[in-house]
Amino acid sequence: MTATDPHRTAVPSQASELVSTLPGRYYTDPAIFAREQEHILESRWFCAVRSADLARPGAFRTATVGRESVLVCRNRSGDVRAFLNVCRHRGAQVCTAEAGEVRRSLQCPYHAWTYDLDGRLTAAPNMADMPGVDRGERGLIGVHVREWLGYVWVCLAPQPPSFEETVRQAVARRLDDEEAVERYGAEDLALGRRIAYDVAANWKLVIENFMECYHCGTIHPELTDVLPEFAEGYASQYYVGHGARFGEGVAGFTVDGTAGFGRIDGVTEEQDRRYYAVTVPPQVFLNLVPDHVIVHRLFPLAPDRTLIECDWLYSPDVVDSGADLSRSVELFDRVNRQDFAACERCQPAMSSRAYRDGGVLVPVEHHIAEFHSWVGEMLGEAEL
Amino acid sequence: MTATDPHRTAVPSQASELVSTLPGRYYTDPAIFAREQEHILESRWFCAVRSADLARPGAFRTATVGRESVLVCRNRSGDVRAFLNVCRHRGAQVCTAEAGEVRRSLQCPYHAWTYDLDGRLTAAPNMADMPGVDRGERGLIGVHVREWLGYVWVCLAPQPPSFEETVRQAVARRLDDEEAVERYGAEDLALGRRIAYDVAANWKLVIENFMECYHCGTIHPELTDVLPEFAEGYASQYYVGHGARFGEGVAGFTVDGTAGFGRIDGVTEEQDRRYYAVTVPPQVFLNLVPDHVIVHRLFPLAPDRTLIECDWLYSPDVVDSGADLSRSVELFDRVNRQDFAACERCQPAMSSRAYRDGGVLVPVEHHIAEFHSWVGEMLGEAEL
Amino acid sequence: MTATDPHRTAVPSQASELVSTLPGRYYTDPAIFAREQEHILESRWFCAVRSADLARPGAFRTATVGRESVLVCRNRSGDVRAFLNVCRHRGAQVCTAEAGEVRRSLQCPYHAWTYDLDGRLTAAPNMADMPGVDRGERGLIGVHVREWLGYVWVCLAPQPPSFEETVRQAVARRLDDEEAVERYGAEDLALGRRIAYDVAANWKLVIENFMECYHCGTIHPELTDVLPEFAEGYASQYYVGHGARFGEGVAGFTVDGTAGFGRIDGVTEEQDRRYYAVTVPPQVFLNLVPDHVIVHRLFPLAPDRTLIECDWLYSPDVVDSGADLSRSVELFDRVNRQDFAACERCQPAMSSRAYRDGGVLVPVEHHIAEFHSWVGEMLGEAEL
Repeated sequence: MTATDPHRTAVPSQASELVSTLPGRYYTDPAIFAREQEHILESRWFCAVRSADLARPGAFRTATVGRESVLVCRNRSGDVRAFLNVCRHRGAQVCTAEAGEVRRSLQCPYHAWTYDLDGRLTAAPNMADMPGVDRGERGLIGVHVREWLGYVWVCLAPQPPSFEETVRQAVARRLDDEEAVERYGAEDLALGRRIAYDVAANWKLVIENFMECYHCGTIHPELTDVLPEFAEGYASQYYVGHGARFGEGVAGFTVDGTAGFGRIDGVTEEQDRRYYAVTVPPQVFLNLVPDHVIVHRLFPLAPDRTLIECDWLYSPDVVDSGADLSRSVELFDRVNRQDFAACERCQPAMSSRAYRDGGVLVPVEHHIAEFHSWVGEMLGEAEL
Repeated sequence: MTATDPHRTAVPSQASELVSTLPGRYYTDPAIFAREQEHILESRWFCAVRSADLARPGAFRTATVGRESVLVCRNRSGDVRAFLNVCRHRGAQVCTAEAGEVRRSLQCPYHAWTYDLDGRLTAAPNMADMPGVDRGERGLIGVHVREWLGYVWVCLAPQPPSFEETVRQAVARRLDDEEAVERYGAEDLALGRRIAYDVAANWKLVIENFMECYHCGTIHPELTDVLPEFAEGYASQYYVGHGARFGEGVAGFTVDGTAGFGRIDGVTEEQDRRYYAVTVPPQVFLNLVPDHVIVHRLFPLAPDRTLIECDWLYSPDVVDSGADLSRSVELFDRVNRQDFAACERCQPAMSSRAYRDGGVLVPVEHHIAEFHSWVGEMLGEAEL
Repeated sequence: MTATDPHRTAVPSQASELVSTLPGRYYTDPAIFAREQEHILESRWFCAVRSADLARPGAFRTATVGRESVLVCRNRSGDVRAFLNVCRHRGAQVCTAEAGEVRRSLQCPYHAWTYDLDGRLTAAPNMADMPGVDRGERGLIGVHVREWLGYVWVCLAPQPPSFEETVRQAVARRLDDEEAVERYGAEDLALGRRIAYDVAANWKLVIENFMECYHCGTIHPELTDVLPEFAEGYASQYYVGHGARFGEGVAGFTVDGTAGFGRIDGVTEEQDRRYYAVTVPPQVFLNLVPDHVIVHRLFPLAPDRTLIECDWLYSPDVVDSGADLSRSVELFDRVNRQDFAACERCQPAMSSRAYRDGGVLVPVEHHIAEFHSWVGEMLGEAEL
């Protein structure tokens, strides 16, 4: 940290105080989780699938969003559509596979009700005997869709919040720059590796963990070797617009600090040799380094279980070249495993009388309180 | 379908309308399932075990009826008796095996309280020191029993509904013939094969599936080959008294339409070359074809789990001859697997917001609404 | 039983009556179990770990006490300390291993908050930036500790009940002798064998089973061979101060009645060739025989699950000699398996309508009613 690094001066006030976390029940109570499903996961923009995984018209993916199975597909015009994955006739899941491809229509395999790729009911057996059936009214129930950063974001609310305000601007504010994230061109990158983690911890523990770096010195030896400032406990998210600087002798963001790949086109000199992290609540982590982007999508499944899909994205020429990605991937894969183990170690204690009123945030963790306020606001609670 | 087939003219009115199913919560809510256990499974006549499985005095079987383990046995006089499977002393299960045979008495293996095959307490250690104990009062708690079609039906209600009205006449009404089912002489048939299916779906989904044939064209290729009219979507249960006719070139009710076995004595010319199906709510399906009878017994275990035992019954001389039953059994075994997979595909969607108010019944499924009304009536609900 | 055995004359009154047990819901209802966790398991003295398993300063064990994970360790002075196993910072479990050893301090592996072996917060990263943090206030939350019979007993209540009255005197009253249990010198014995049993039954079923011997004639052939009076159904706990006498030809408390080991120093002539049993509610069974002591600790985990650790303790010279303990251990290991199978056989019936009002206690089981009264008293219920 030097005087030439202005972003690292915006320190919260009351820095020497301890601030309370959420009470333990917020991490264990099924009723609170149900309210989070309704008011957060099914009401906010939710990053469901990678656009490139829907390569052609007819390609589909299913994703768990809150309590719902959502069917995301690409229509004949090449646009992405999303629906509740439930046939309007007798309620069979239209697609049960995680991924697949159809030709022109989605057909329920129970009674063959058939929908086009925009969700319209187009055919059903004995349809001629049902002149009164309004095909428009009986189509698959649509879900709002946006594409950004190469991902399909869905929102199950009838009136979604502003995507611009709650997603794009939220990221811009964290990075203190409207254009910063765009420069990595994530929508043009190629998937180098995807790893799924099944974590026995509440989703909020995973978010809190990602937001702070007070634990970095204790559990992330490889990461602090690459980003020495992390050993001091200050996460890049502690600041606005700060990217943690690579260590002097570090050649790249790899498990052993050896060289990675060429800088992504568009990444600026200022962004080079830095690691930026952004949390997009409720369920996305963006990790930006010069030669790749790592995107975490969290799928909260139960109060004590979160599925996490992590994508490592590289320039297409890197992936196409068949280059060895292993040292590049292994750095954050280790970080993930170290983090998720820590979260799983916290989960059982959330129900202890010792955590009835929660724990504490030390000064370098104070920004987590903003997340807690956001949760409270979403749940309609003035004070948590 | 021809003018000579009068049973196929009784079509419900309003045939072109869509009718609502039950709301989704009826298939998922543990509280509704608990009420079904109390007011349906433990209050109606329940087909528990096959009589022939209690071959001799002392033979017993245990069966799960609603929330209870029921012990069914044959007494010294050769009559069938049934009891709650709970020792009156300290509550050990008297028999834990699914089936077995005792000599003269049922002895609890914990403290050796001993009951005769009519449930009377006959002995217990230190009985001499307990002169005040009324052995009559401390016997196993009996359960009402009837035998019909070669099965033992039990009822856990203190005042059972009329077996004649709610079981025998219900079957007769469906078949439009007092004697129709009796002609298959199910009580004299022999068990050729029994297959148990553990299905991850609510019991009512299984019943609804069995009642309609709108799905037959989609999921039952072998069945519609044998019964071509099923491809039109009209189940035999759509009508009163109708048996679906075998296809022209079909020799028997087998997986490939090859010949089955000789017609069961008693089966009439009118019944020959036809498949009749009857649903006896809450948990029995009867399938009648000229050379065999298939009986499904459903054991609902949880809102989303149903165990199903399916028996294939043949004339004793067929079974004794060691004839190859495989093509005969395979037809409905395939149908079962196709059906139960469809039910399992519906179960997850029952909790979706898309199914909050249920789905719809198309005209050829309208008779399922009678089952829904029956459920509502049993649960004491005027309207569902 | 002879006239020279005065202890066996204290028979409860109303001996020929049947007395009710607890209603079935006491063994199945999660709400009742939660109240038992709070008002019994987390409020009474609970025997957590064997002292000798904390051999040196820095040794620790974790134990489940009610809903809490408790961390028990030996401090630098050699004293035992116990804490809620929850870091005061963000709630990670400080130790997740069942057993281990640290040098000087307990360090949370998430953010490296560090506590000494008396629970005081001694260090944390960035501590210098937090001058307002009161280290005393932020220590591990302590739990009351006592050592007796070579075990560490903990109590999670802020104001524990008297250990003297509720544990030591309770044992003395059962044995009708202040010194009886001390003569076995359990704190100086060595662990010969430990076996853990995972039992699918409510903890109270396990206690009731241990208290009575009405079942001994039915399920414990090896035990009644060694203690013939048990075949009569009278448990040693039926009386005050009674020890069941070894059979005439029995040489020792072994699975086949062959000789065991030399009498423990301190055991009196009167205690020789006898088996004494004491239940220390809520979760300890003591079994005293001339040459060893068997201690059961119950860990109730759910309404229908109890983990049981059973220790066989011998004179250190017996253990050190490498003597074959197998026949000695096998006797009670068999008894345990026989008993726990019986308890598991009762558990499913606890939810039957046949057990809605409970079962009955025969005269030789009447003393179990005292345990039921104690449970009711702990739960604040005048009448159960």
